Amino acid sequence: MKQFTGYLLDLDGTMYRGTERIDAGKRLVDRLADAGIPYLFVTNNSSKTPEQIAEKLQEMEIKAEPSQVMTSAEACASYLKRKHGELNVYAIGEHGLLTALESEGHTRVSEKADAVVMGIDRQLTYEKLADACLQVRNGAKFVSTNADKAVPTERGMLPGNGSLTSVVHVSTGVEPLFIGKPEAIIMEEAMKRLGTDPSLTVMVGDNYETDIMAGMRAGIATLLVFSGFTRPEDRAWQVKRPDFTVTTLDDWSV
Amino acid sequence: MKQFTGYLLDLDGTMYRGTERIDAGKRLVDRLADAGIPYLFVTNNSSKTPEQIAEKLQEMEIKAEPSQVMTSAEACASYLKRKHGELNVYAIGEHGLLTALESEGHTRVSEKADAVVMGIDRQLTYEKLADACLQVRNGAKFVSTNADKAVPTERGMLPGNGSLTSVVHVSTGVEPLFIGKPEAIIMEEAMKRLGTDPSLTVMVGDNYETDIMAGMRAGIATLLVFSGFTRPEDRAWQVKRPDFTVTTLDDWSV
Repeated sequence: MKQFTGYLLDLDGTMYRGTERIDAGKRLVDRLADAGIPYLFVTNNSSKTPEQIAEKLQEMEIKAEPSQVMTSAEACASYLKRKHGELNVYAIGEHGLLTALESEGHTRVSEKADAVVMGIDRQLTYEKLADACLQVRNGAKFVSTNADKAVPTERGMLPGNGSLTSVVHVSTGVEPLFIGKPEAIIMEEAMKRLGTDPSLTVMVGDNYETDIMAGMRAGIATLLVFSGFTRPEDRAWQVKRPDFTVTTLDDWSV
Repeated sequence: MKQFTGYLLDLDGTMYRGTERIDAGKRLVDRLADAGIPYLFVTNNSSKTPEQIAEKLQEMEIKAEPSQVMTSAEACASYLKRKHGELNVYAIGEHGLLTALESEGHTRVSEKADAVVMGIDRQLTYEKLADACLQVRNGAKFVSTNADKAVPTERGMLPGNGSLTSVVHVSTGVEPLFIGKPEAIIMEEAMKRLGTDPSLTVMVGDNYETDIMAGMRAGIATLLVFSGFTRPEDRAWQVKRPDFTVTTLDDWSV
């Protein structure tokens, strides 16, 4: 088996389930750290900062620094900076997104935005959506951190950012550019951060539709682990297969 | 030409443009009133009550009683009552929708709803959308007053109810049942109110995509007037033509 020199790691379903650690995930990270192989946690979460996510991992004794976490909010902010420079941005989102945009030098504005950026916002209002529509109709680029339709919570499945984004999409007729998994953009931003060669980088995750599709679209190797969302009996992953599948990450040698 | 014994009349673009009366619309209503021919104003508006809409028409000296106005909110409430009886309803919407639901004997609830009903709500929040998603996932019927993508305002085109409804549709995967134009349901509810024979009823409007399509889907005669949205040079109406077209309603004899 190829020796990979860079690992992109999914979180929920791969490192933990909700608040419960997946021990084989922790052990993979330990092996990577021991071998000095660079790794980056890649998450569609746009509401939290990398510091908050690293802290959650550290509490589970999974080795993670904030610089080893890439959120869809960070990927969005860095992608916009790299493609278009520092922008005036109208943002709908939570702390993680607002922080990421500011960190990359973008300026939040309430009108005359160069770009409208949407991430999940539990304080969403009609007024925010109205302002987003007006600015997209006015020519602002339309970017969304991720297309997640629903997010699991203790109350049940609540609206994800993809469903919120649909308001502006449907109302204006303008297609958003999505950044997070299963898009390749977040993979590409992650590899720029990690500094690894795509031909020697592998994306590891439990969700065929997001993690594995993102890796495939970015043209990198993919490892599907059956510890979360996708089940061995599911059809989808068997049609266009990941490079590798394992039942548990304990079966994977770095 | 056939003598129609019932008229369904669109409002915006047919009777007025924004706050400006279309005089030929008023004169058609006068002729109908003088001839004793029943007519009903049919609007996708779900935020206002029929009283409010009749008042606006009366201020323009267009003859209208509240009973001569059918909003998509009323059509929604009466359709649900006729199909399913009085329901426990989780409603997102404004005064017009909430009033219409109560008038038909439905009860507004915050959980364990039989139906989720959506109309435009300028006080929309994430929490309202979350509750709607939870109840639709829990098996509640999913009904929406109309699929309007955008509403014209002084600020520009703001999100319409169709775009707001897409959040719940996209997030849950459940298709909403739309009530308003271009659906036939609002036509059918209007004819029940008017008590006229469909074969002798005509739908009059300026918008091919909504007014005329609704009439066609309901199997009634249609009259397209070029006083508003649809232009004589547009292709769509020329492919599947309305029964009648006029430049101004002054050209129409009742």
